[in-house]
Amino acid sequence: MSSALPHVYISEFKHHVGEQVRLKGWVYNIRSSGKLMFPEFRDGSGIVQGVVSKKDVSDSVWQQFETLTQESSVIVTGTISKHPKLENVYELHVSDLDIIHIAHDYPITPKEHGVEFLADKRHLWLRSKRQWAIMRVRHEVINAIRDFFNQRDFTLIDSPIITPNAVEGTTTLFELDYFDLGKAYLTQSGQLYGEASAMAFGKVYVFGPTFRAEKSKTRRHLTEFWMVEPEMAYYDLEMTMALAEEFVEYIVQRVLEKRKEELTVLERDLTKLEKITRPFHRLSYTDAVEWLNKHNVKLIKKAADGSETEIDFPWGEDFGAPQEEALMAQFDKPCIIHRYPAEVKAFYMKRDPENPKLALAMDMLAPEGAGEIIGGSQREDSYEALLERLREHNLPQEPFEWYLDLRRYGSVPHSGFGLGLERTVKWICGLEHIRETSPYPRMIYRNTP
Amino acid sequence: MSSALPHVYISEFKHHVGEQVRLKGWVYNIRSSGKLMFPEFRDGSGIVQGVVSKKDVSDSVWQQFETLTQESSVIVTGTISKHPKLENVYELHVSDLDIIHIAHDYPITPKEHGVEFLADKRHLWLRSKRQWAIMRVRHEVINAIRDFFNQRDFTLIDSPIITPNAVEGTTTLFELDYFDLGKAYLTQSGQLYGEASAMAFGKVYVFGPTFRAEKSKTRRHLTEFWMVEPEMAYYDLEMTMALAEEFVEYIVQRVLEKRKEELTVLERDLTKLEKITRPFHRLSYTDAVEWLNKHNVKLIKKAADGSETEIDFPWGEDFGAPQEEALMAQFDKPCIIHRYPAEVKAFYMKRDPENPKLALAMDMLAPEGAGEIIGGSQREDSYEALLERLREHNLPQEPFEWYLDLRRYGSVPHSGFGLGLERTVKWICGLEHIRETSPYPRMIYRNTP
Repeated sequence: MSSALPHVYISEFKHHVGEQVRLKGWVYNIRSSGKLMFPEFRDGSGIVQGVVSKKDVSDSVWQQFETLTQESSVIVTGTISKHPKLENVYELHVSDLDIIHIAHDYPITPKEHGVEFLADKRHLWLRSKRQWAIMRVRHEVINAIRDFFNQRDFTLIDSPIITPNAVEGTTTLFELDYFDLGKAYLTQSGQLYGEASAMAFGKVYVFGPTFRAEKSKTRRHLTEFWMVEPEMAYYDLEMTMALAEEFVEYIVQRVLEKRKEELTVLERDLTKLEKITRPFHRLSYTDAVEWLNKHNVKLIKKAADGSETEIDFPWGEDFGAPQEEALMAQFDKPCIIHRYPAEVKAFYMKRDPENPKLALAMDMLAPEGAGEIIGGSQREDSYEALLERLREHNLPQEPFEWYLDLRRYGSVPHSGFGLGLERTVKWICGLEHIRETSPYPRMIYRNTP
Repeated sequence: MSSALPHVYISEFKHHVGEQVRLKGWVYNIRSSGKLMFPEFRDGSGIVQGVVSKKDVSDSVWQQFETLTQESSVIVTGTISKHPKLENVYELHVSDLDIIHIAHDYPITPKEHGVEFLADKRHLWLRSKRQWAIMRVRHEVINAIRDFFNQRDFTLIDSPIITPNAVEGTTTLFELDYFDLGKAYLTQSGQLYGEASAMAFGKVYVFGPTFRAEKSKTRRHLTEFWMVEPEMAYYDLEMTMALAEEFVEYIVQRVLEKRKEELTVLERDLTKLEKITRPFHRLSYTDAVEWLNKHNVKLIKKAADGSETEIDFPWGEDFGAPQEEALMAQFDKPCIIHRYPAEVKAFYMKRDPENPKLALAMDMLAPEGAGEIIGGSQREDSYEALLERLREHNLPQEPFEWYLDLRRYGSVPHSGFGLGLERTVKWICGLEHIRETSPYPRMIYRNTP
């Protein structure tokens, strides 16, 4: 690493056309054609094709190139040129080579591999073009999320991962021993802490890993995933729905603007993403039920003997995947469903003053079968009502004393929502399975590498 | 919330001088003087003084003001004016008031409280001016960290929190049951995952919560804290030390630029922070030992019978707090100590080719007794050497097979470091105890609220 020539990352090649530079990276692929070789190099910032001409390099350099294998690490000297035909594509006309390390029998070859094999080799699989592109989109989504809230004067407040209570049962919680204080649990949501923080900072967002010890083997579940949870004092449901729409539009348009190269690698249909602009759709739960029944989307009821009957969708039942998919099939933009039956929603949600059977809740569903990406609500801000809710849900009061304090001392109307990072990345990238959205995914049957 | 007057956050008052606006917030403090009242309002974005004049408001508004208590929530209408004497200070001349909720007996009063009492009420304590200021500095430090790496084309890669192995013993690990896969552990560092990711993305940073189940009751230890860990392919120790210096300078200068108001609330001596500019100091471990012995900084050796003897500091021993403090007393900038004895450092650190007794390690110590804020190294990139290190440290090979893969397939020189977020915030804010740097701190004897 002592040469005087500048080291330039592939992503910066466009600014160095005609210059002789050094590339520090790995061999992604290599093919030869007589007296020419076309190695593809990657350096983490991108992939570029090299051109090695036998007549332009020394015999020793040519011979060294003949020893290169997939994923061997190399420092290559060459001159950057524009691709003769393709727009925004560059090539490196190679003049010299330093081999750093020859890789023998790299296990991930261009042929097809089983997904379990690839998951076992996740630390290497990330070097593949598709996984590289997904992680770069994930990076952009995270930055978009942070920029969105920072630009709007939200304060980031990290909620704790280790939490003391398991008030709603331990079945979906990871449990650990906390010194002499007994059992503790990994957080499932930072919302309650977000609410306390909103009373101190006005507008906050919590953004960190959350955990569900759910035995769900679906294409939409990870046991460890990141969630961003904004919480705003003096926001009602209406303001919160408007913020959620602005937020999702911002994320998608930002990725489109900054990560077109990566989306193209993923063969994503960009026109679908270009449509994600406000206004989004909105439907009250009650209107959604009416729509389902008008369009003959039945609910399948399973009897104890296993027999199934189809019935009209009854008001009061929560939507499942079939209902959500039927509703969303008509839309090419996200849709917010709001004002759900209070009975199917969490204890902390405020009742609709116009109809106390309804909770001031909202979910945002994404199109293309992506399902729910946001869940939120206006929170109960009355001390008495919250206490009643705790009793109705058979929850003990003591662990919630600190949370009740927020209603004792200067309670204000407030609202918030949570957006699942990995589900959003899955949708934007157009992926089949959520496991590809996490660098090192954790699922019920996998916690390695 | 139906009034037509615009809601303006206190932080934006400077752009609305002379305008009639609404403030939505809480009563921070209230004092009266005959026919004038001076309530201080806070709304999360700042604190502002209101002026209520009996002759300018209706009797009913005046009477309502007389009922206000600390932390009552209010919507206040008034006109913004510049403070008659103070620069960059604004006042709100009140014309109307909506009381949202009266707080009775708010437990944190302006008088002194014990720290355990305040910690129990952390969800309310965050509303106090000092805690508000610290969290806003924390927010800025986090944003500075992310911007620094994003601007330099690093890719954020989230390492997993749940990790499968406890190869170096379980004494400082939090343990949990992972379905049918047996015991799993909360991560202590994302470094190994960062290394794998650097081979795919070139320059990466891991930034998330990490955990130490250490029974340390010190002013510098949390059981849950955030750490940022950049890792760079094709970086040697020298480049990494330079990056670490640029990074710390950037963080401190950014906070100084953007959070002067908060640092002033904390009564921080700004001149100390203004000095944190490159070049920083650097000392090799060997030179540091020589300095200690030249300046008569002895090592206290405890014998089995409890008796203590003072000896010259022996080359090969790791530094403790007394040595670090003595070394740093001479500096008002951070100092990097590099090239430690390999024996006191981790197995993955590369040996110095010029002296194999040394590891290519570096620690950055901050001035003012703040201690270590960064630890890093060049990593061992030779497969054979790494295997030997594992054997020397009595570590099993199998759990490290994936990590050894990085040396099997296109190994490259690479380096990285970790910076502890909370220790950095503690230093910048000039705090005595690390517990105030975390919104909801977790310590050996505390995991609530």
